[in-house]
Amino acid sequence: MTIIDGKSVGATLAAETGDFVRSLGTSQNLKPGLAVVIVGNDPASRIYVNHKVKKAAELAIHSVKHELPENASQADVLGLIEVLNQDPAIHGILVQSPPPAHIDERRIIETITPEKDVDCFHPYNVGKLAIGDTDGFVPCTPAGIMVLLQRYDITVAGRHAVVVGRSNIVGRPMTLLLSRKSRYGNATVTLCHSRTADIADVIRQGDIVVAAIGKPGFITGDMVKPGCVIIDVGINRVDDPTAKRGYRLVGDTDFESVSQKASYMTPVPGGVGPMTIAMLMANTVRACCLQNGLAPPDHPF
Amino acid sequence: MTIIDGKSVGATLAAETGDFVRSLGTSQNLKPGLAVVIVGNDPASRIYVNHKVKKAAELAIHSVKHELPENASQADVLGLIEVLNQDPAIHGILVQSPPPAHIDERRIIETITPEKDVDCFHPYNVGKLAIGDTDGFVPCTPAGIMVLLQRYDITVAGRHAVVVGRSNIVGRPMTLLLSRKSRYGNATVTLCHSRTADIADVIRQGDIVVAAIGKPGFITGDMVKPGCVIIDVGINRVDDPTAKRGYRLVGDTDFESVSQKASYMTPVPGGVGPMTIAMLMANTVRACCLQNGLAPPDHPF
Repeated sequence: MTIIDGKSVGATLAAETGDFVRSLGTSQNLKPGLAVVIVGNDPASRIYVNHKVKKAAELAIHSVKHELPENASQADVLGLIEVLNQDPAIHGILVQSPPPAHIDERRIIETITPEKDVDCFHPYNVGKLAIGDTDGFVPCTPAGIMVLLQRYDITVAGRHAVVVGRSNIVGRPMTLLLSRKSRYGNATVTLCHSRTADIADVIRQGDIVVAAIGKPGFITGDMVKPGCVIIDVGINRVDDPTAKRGYRLVGDTDFESVSQKASYMTPVPGGVGPMTIAMLMANTVRACCLQNGLAPPDHPF
Repeated sequence: MTIIDGKSVGATLAAETGDFVRSLGTSQNLKPGLAVVIVGNDPASRIYVNHKVKKAAELAIHSVKHELPENASQADVLGLIEVLNQDPAIHGILVQSPPPAHIDERRIIETITPEKDVDCFHPYNVGKLAIGDTDGFVPCTPAGIMVLLQRYDITVAGRHAVVVGRSNIVGRPMTLLLSRKSRYGNATVTLCHSRTADIADVIRQGDIVVAAIGKPGFITGDMVKPGCVIIDVGINRVDDPTAKRGYRLVGDTDFESVSQKASYMTPVPGGVGPMTIAMLMANTVRACCLQNGLAPPDHPF
């Protein structure tokens, strides 16, 4: 069984992106710019945002963090986005989710100009993804998974991929990417979810299983096909008194039993997670290229 | 085996739509308006367009046909669409596909304002469909299929639906609708296509099979599960010297053998076909309601 080392692939992708950023600076005098907006004081959101800004700095991407107070109005947030939409130094905009309850997140997302929607949350970009237009964006986690499959040279075409979980940020876009008529697509794809009958029987058909349901250890060894490829997107906290912080992170699969049957498997942590932020940086660079009429780096989707 | 009579359901839906149109006239002094644009002389396209205009008239929907010559420029078409986008008497706009080769169809589609995109071809509306936003449109053929399932009281939730064919106008939106977390969705959905290995084994799992591949009689009785529901979207011409026109229309399933195993089945013609045009009218009325801040008729998706 081969462990798919997302930490290593993510680092490689980040290094490639950093090299590309530097070459853009030299050859075009261009610097990709990312604006990260956070509203309110959610501690986890603050950590994520700081992590993104730090990663951007590492790759020589210009980044700006906008921190709005918990009581910022909808108009405040929309006004800021309008300014960022017009700012030529900013190529990508993201608003950290979730905003406070009084903010209409959908409205926020639809105000970001699609050209700068590096999270690929805007319906226009989701639609492009769905119809196979390749000049939009791909959301970061699914894009990162496609890169993992590519870098480990895992065949997707003609195989049966089972996606477990129908979220808009992982499950649905994964089904679109894996089934696409494209170099790294062409899989037969089954989408199963909380309402699926006999879910074990469905998962057991998967040559490739993408688990994104948010249930710790849900998929066990008896539920998977021998030789399958397991992509575990779950990041669940489970209590662990022996751990320093009192908990540990586990995926949606039971690593011990599943790893005895899989041929390839992403660990949690260190699998899909590190790819997401690396793809956010790659999407920012892509946005910068597209906004300046330049060819963006190649990608496997 | 029950034949799903699309001709009858389509007529019922059309009559309901006509009643609603008349009530809009009485209560709101509103008349839904549909603009149909055709570029060039493709004979099949002319028939379709005339059919749509005639159906609109039957339902008291205001309709306008714009016929542009084969050599109309891209700018001519875009200019017309801009005018229609602004016209308050027009709530739905469709441009008959395919346009002549020198016209960029994607550009045409993206110029139609999403509010009037009753075909649901604009990426913005496709994206809304994909993320489960119910305030956009649903493309006419998939919407019509959902109505057939509803009117025949066929359970979708928790069952395994197999969609054969990944086109943007039928296959992909069907997978989105059937798997949605909604009253008429919640199926486990498999999308298979030309690159699927062992396609018969996949189709044989379907409690509901939606065939949309454009291959006459491709699915035969041995490839389906006893008791399954068959929705045949194919409309294929096959030579038939005994027929008046020298051909007859057949679906993607072999009716004779499949009908011996299915519990419900749409015939070709007279199954899905009549629903498409009925849904186009329903979408036009929906567009009129949404543009005027009124609640549109209820729909099963």
